Amino acid sequence: VGAGHFSEPEARLSRATAQRLSLYLRCLGSGARNGGTVSSVDLARAVGVSAAQVRRDLAALGHLGRRGVGYDAAGLATAIRRTLGIDRPWRAVLVGVGNLARALLRYRGFRDQGFLIVGLFDNDPAKVGQTVEGLLVEPTSTIPARVPALRAELGVLTVPSESAQALADALTAAGVRGLLNFAPVLLRTPATVRVVTVDLAIQLEQLAFLVQLPDGQAEGVERPPAGR
Amino acid sequence: VGAGHFSEPEARLSRATAQRLSLYLRCLGSGARNGGTVSSVDLARAVGVSAAQVRRDLAALGHLGRRGVGYDAAGLATAIRRTLGIDRPWRAVLVGVGNLARALLRYRGFRDQGFLIVGLFDNDPAKVGQTVEGLLVEPTSTIPARVPALRAELGVLTVPSESAQALADALTAAGVRGLLNFAPVLLRTPATVRVVTVDLAIQLEQLAFLVQLPDGQAEGVERPPAGR
Repeated sequence: VGAGHFSEPEARLSRATAQRLSLYLRCLGSGARNGGTVSSVDLARAVGVSAAQVRRDLAALGHLGRRGVGYDAAGLATAIRRTLGIDRPWRAVLVGVGNLARALLRYRGFRDQGFLIVGLFDNDPAKVGQTVEGLLVEPTSTIPARVPALRAELGVLTVPSESAQALADALTAAGVRGLLNFAPVLLRTPATVRVVTVDLAIQLEQLAFLVQLPDGQAEGVERPPAGR
Repeated sequence: VGAGHFSEPEARLSRATAQRLSLYLRCLGSGARNGGTVSSVDLARAVGVSAAQVRRDLAALGHLGRRGVGYDAAGLATAIRRTLGIDRPWRAVLVGVGNLARALLRYRGFRDQGFLIVGLFDNDPAKVGQTVEGLLVEPTSTIPARVPALRAELGVLTVPSESAQALADALTAAGVRGLLNFAPVLLRTPATVRVVTVDLAIQLEQLAFLVQLPDGQAEGVERPPAGR
C-alpha cells in the first residue's frame, strides 16, 4: 500500500468495518434517533459491539461525537453513505426469475437504499416475456446487449449452482462490476469484478454454532437494542 | 471467562473463525478434494484468506496437515462439523410462507447440511391449510403448542418487518433457541436465544462498497478458487 492511499481513509476500511457501518446506518434510519442525535452507546447496543469500537469507526470517518450530546444522526448517515459509496443510486440486473427473485423484487429495502433493479433475465422460455413486478423478463442470450443499454453496474444471480458460473461470465463480459450471488458456489471472476455470496446454508450453520455455545461465550453476536 | 473453558477450545472460537470453517467445509464438499486430501493452499485460495490463516484455524481443531500431502478431507469435514455443532440434524420451523419461504424450502443446501424444516406457519387465512413443499401451513396462533410438538430448535422468520418481533417473541416463548431472521430489523430476544439476521440490502451495500474500492484495496474479498 503506497503512502498516497493514506489521503483517502475510506479506501482503507476493512470489510468488517464496512459491515459495521452498514449496521450503524440501519440504526440511524430505524428510530434510534432521539431529537436528531444518537450516542455511541445507542449504536453499540443496537449493533452488538463496544461503544469504543463505534467511536473508533466513526472517528475514522472524521466524525467525533460530543460528550453528553452524541452524533448528529443526519450528518452521520450522510458520511456513512458517502464512505460506503451508496450516496448515489446503483443500477442492477437480476438473473434467474424464481421464488427468490420475486422475493427480492418485492423487498422494499433495496429501493430504499438506492438499489434499482432495472432488468430481469431468465433462460426458461416459459418465463421470458412475462412481466414480474413491472419488469419484462428477457432471455439470458440478450445479456451482452441489454446490460450496457440498461447501464447496469451490478448483477444479482438467483440461479441454480449449475448455471451460476456461466451467467457470471456473461454478466462480467457485459460490463457488470459486482455480483451478488445466491448460488452456493464460489464464482471465478476477474479481480476487477467483486463478488458477495449469500450462502443461506452457511447462515443456518452459523446460527447452529451460536446456539450450541455456552451462554456468554458468543463473541460478535447480535445484541438486543437498548430500550428493552 | 473461567479457566475451565480452555479445556474446550471450540467454545472459544470467534464468529469470524466459525464463518471461515463453514467456507472450508463448503470447499471440502464441492470437489476441492484430490485423492482424499486437500492442501491449506487450496482451501486458502478458495476462501480468500492466507494459507497461514487456514493452518492456524485447522490447528485449533487439532488438525495438522502433513507437508506435501495436506489434510485428510473426510476427517477434516467431520472435525469442522463437530466444532460447528452440525454433526447432527437441526429441526427448524419457518414462519411466513411467501416467495422467500418457498425459495428456502426448495433450497437443497439446507437439507444437505442437516437442517430440516419440519413446520410452516402463517397468519394469512388464505395460506393456512395449503400444502407447500409437502408441509401443511398452520396458523401462527398454534406456534405455542406445535413448536414443542415438532421438537423444533430453530426458527426461520420470513415475515414483514412489522410482524417480526411479535413472531420472534412467540417462537422464543415456544422454546426455540435460535432465529434466522430475514426481516431488516434488529430483533430483541433473551440472551439465551441467538439471532442471525440476513439483511439483503446490507449485502448489496457491501457489494457497492467493494465495487467502488480501488483495485487491490479490498481486504477480505472473496477470491477465485485455484484452477482458473
